[in-house]
Amino acid sequence: MELKNDLLLRTVNGEKVERPPVWLMRQAGRILPQYRAIRSSLSGFKELVATPDLAAEVTIQPVDELDVDAAIIFSDILVIPESMGLHYELIEKKGPLFPKTIETAKDIENLIEGAEAAENLDYVYHALDVTKKELAGRVPLIGFCGAPWTIFSYMLEGSGSKTFSKAKKFLYTEPDLAHQLLDKITNTSIAYLKKKVEHGVNLIQIFDSWAGILSPEQYRTFALPYIQKMCEAITDVPVTVFAKGAWFVLEDLGKLPCATLGLDWSTNPQLARQKVGESKVFQGNLDPCQLYASHKEIELACTSMIKAFGDKHIVNLGHGVYPDTPLDGVKTFVNTVKNYQYSS
Amino acid sequence: MELKNDLLLRTVNGEKVERPPVWLMRQAGRILPQYRAIRSSLSGFKELVATPDLAAEVTIQPVDELDVDAAIIFSDILVIPESMGLHYELIEKKGPLFPKTIETAKDIENLIEGAEAAENLDYVYHALDVTKKELAGRVPLIGFCGAPWTIFSYMLEGSGSKTFSKAKKFLYTEPDLAHQLLDKITNTSIAYLKKKVEHGVNLIQIFDSWAGILSPEQYRTFALPYIQKMCEAITDVPVTVFAKGAWFVLEDLGKLPCATLGLDWSTNPQLARQKVGESKVFQGNLDPCQLYASHKEIELACTSMIKAFGDKHIVNLGHGVYPDTPLDGVKTFVNTVKNYQYSS
Repeated sequence: MELKNDLLLRTVNGEKVERPPVWLMRQAGRILPQYRAIRSSLSGFKELVATPDLAAEVTIQPVDELDVDAAIIFSDILVIPESMGLHYELIEKKGPLFPKTIETAKDIENLIEGAEAAENLDYVYHALDVTKKELAGRVPLIGFCGAPWTIFSYMLEGSGSKTFSKAKKFLYTEPDLAHQLLDKITNTSIAYLKKKVEHGVNLIQIFDSWAGILSPEQYRTFALPYIQKMCEAITDVPVTVFAKGAWFVLEDLGKLPCATLGLDWSTNPQLARQKVGESKVFQGNLDPCQLYASHKEIELACTSMIKAFGDKHIVNLGHGVYPDTPLDGVKTFVNTVKNYQYSS
Repeated sequence: MELKNDLLLRTVNGEKVERPPVWLMRQAGRILPQYRAIRSSLSGFKELVATPDLAAEVTIQPVDELDVDAAIIFSDILVIPESMGLHYELIEKKGPLFPKTIETAKDIENLIEGAEAAENLDYVYHALDVTKKELAGRVPLIGFCGAPWTIFSYMLEGSGSKTFSKAKKFLYTEPDLAHQLLDKITNTSIAYLKKKVEHGVNLIQIFDSWAGILSPEQYRTFALPYIQKMCEAITDVPVTVFAKGAWFVLEDLGKLPCATLGLDWSTNPQLARQKVGESKVFQGNLDPCQLYASHKEIELACTSMIKAFGDKHIVNLGHGVYPDTPLDGVKTFVNTVKNYQYSS
């Protein structure tokens, strides 16, 4: 189906565009009253992820309510470890919890992987089918997954952590096993992403949420090669890599075979361009807390960010939008971008 | 009293030294069985902080057990908000909790500040006196406090947080009040540090633990000027500033009137030197998780770090040592440094 709004794809392809496209990480979520209404009728977040009709509905809500330039499928990066046989729960106000974590070679050996694991995620592909149908080509649909290091860190740590010291310890003490596990996660993620592409996503984003806690050397050893492999495997749609906090390997990220790099708010656009060169489109990077400010200040900050990036830019925040962000602030952000015009 | 080991101070003063000095952030703590024995006999961490004889004892333990080149007084950065009238608790395995947080202008107005607040911390000065006496000049004694932004963030947020979005929201929505509060924290911290110097500390370290979550612009507005003021006020002993994650303002940090900058493990030494110039001594920056590795790998990583820094370097980790670090790993780290010799 032809897209009615293909601004995001034209930007990613390096075409000259009239203004930058805009969407928000976590736009399908608690910032929207429509989302909260659906969520409150369910037992939890995981039920929403696993119910295709509802996942599709909340995926489309921000397109209706905010008029953003893309939809991103409502899901969770942790469906990958689950598909591999590692069950998790989401504890209200605390986050993910894996009752069983990876500790030994045997644990890694026992994991399901690749296409076989990806087959366990039919509910995601079904949600994509419903979403594509309901969206009817209004905007592109983004599919996503976690980067192997980030998924690995949850599988070892069992929950969120300030330091992820258990996961990092494994890198130092069991490097060969770490590579085995990272390989399995990568193979599974690639199979999963390929299925997503088959089911119509127009773009893929890879989230390396815990990139920032590795040392440069560790990132080059245990993170980058697996992202590289994923980028190489996804050939039919453009890929965005968002390695949060990974400023220290920005030059390396710039050499990945992907179209777009996500940036958090600590990296200024000029520095990013200088490190990465002209080949990549950038996505980001307003501080999510900026949206707590007044209408006027959001407008000012957003406009100044667009100017600082120049072209080859997809407007987004530098992180997922925080759940208590005022809807008015989000709308001001989106509308500021939509009213912007690149001077020709 | 003359110091028997003044390697740290000679290094900080820019003198040519035979090897870099070494100590570890959080060296007085759970890594030591002696510490765990004392701690288990008490109701909690705060009781230990508030009992001068015991605080002195655990301060000296790592000098005895690890033979490090400095002692750092056992205390907590959150004694400052408490001295200002904001009580906190330490919840086992969760961290600090402030039952009442700062929300309004009135809350800020009601705070005690400056010398009056610093007078509430007599137990710290008493602990310093005991420590100095017991140390008997074996090594220098380091005093510390949190940077104003980090203290501010706890006073607003009430606990640790992944995003500190409440504290950051206040910066965006109530900038004038934020400056008022930062001023009060700064005045109190200066009065506190001056008392510490009176009671014999040989060096001051300022910890900006949550530096990394601000944008460069916010850091320059709400964090740096207050650290600058503190550095200017402390004239009798050298000051170390450790702004964790603040790579994006490294050049600005390099212009502070302090002797030493702490670095975390994401910043490589060459880059730091290039950004900061020759004027500062660096402190850091091994990944704490490296100490989980084998004896040989710790030795290798530590030696290679020392070579990468060259001179003007105090060896430390890039963060506080993690409580479950094997004592053997810590000893290998310290001994590697002590056996090192700069080639002349």
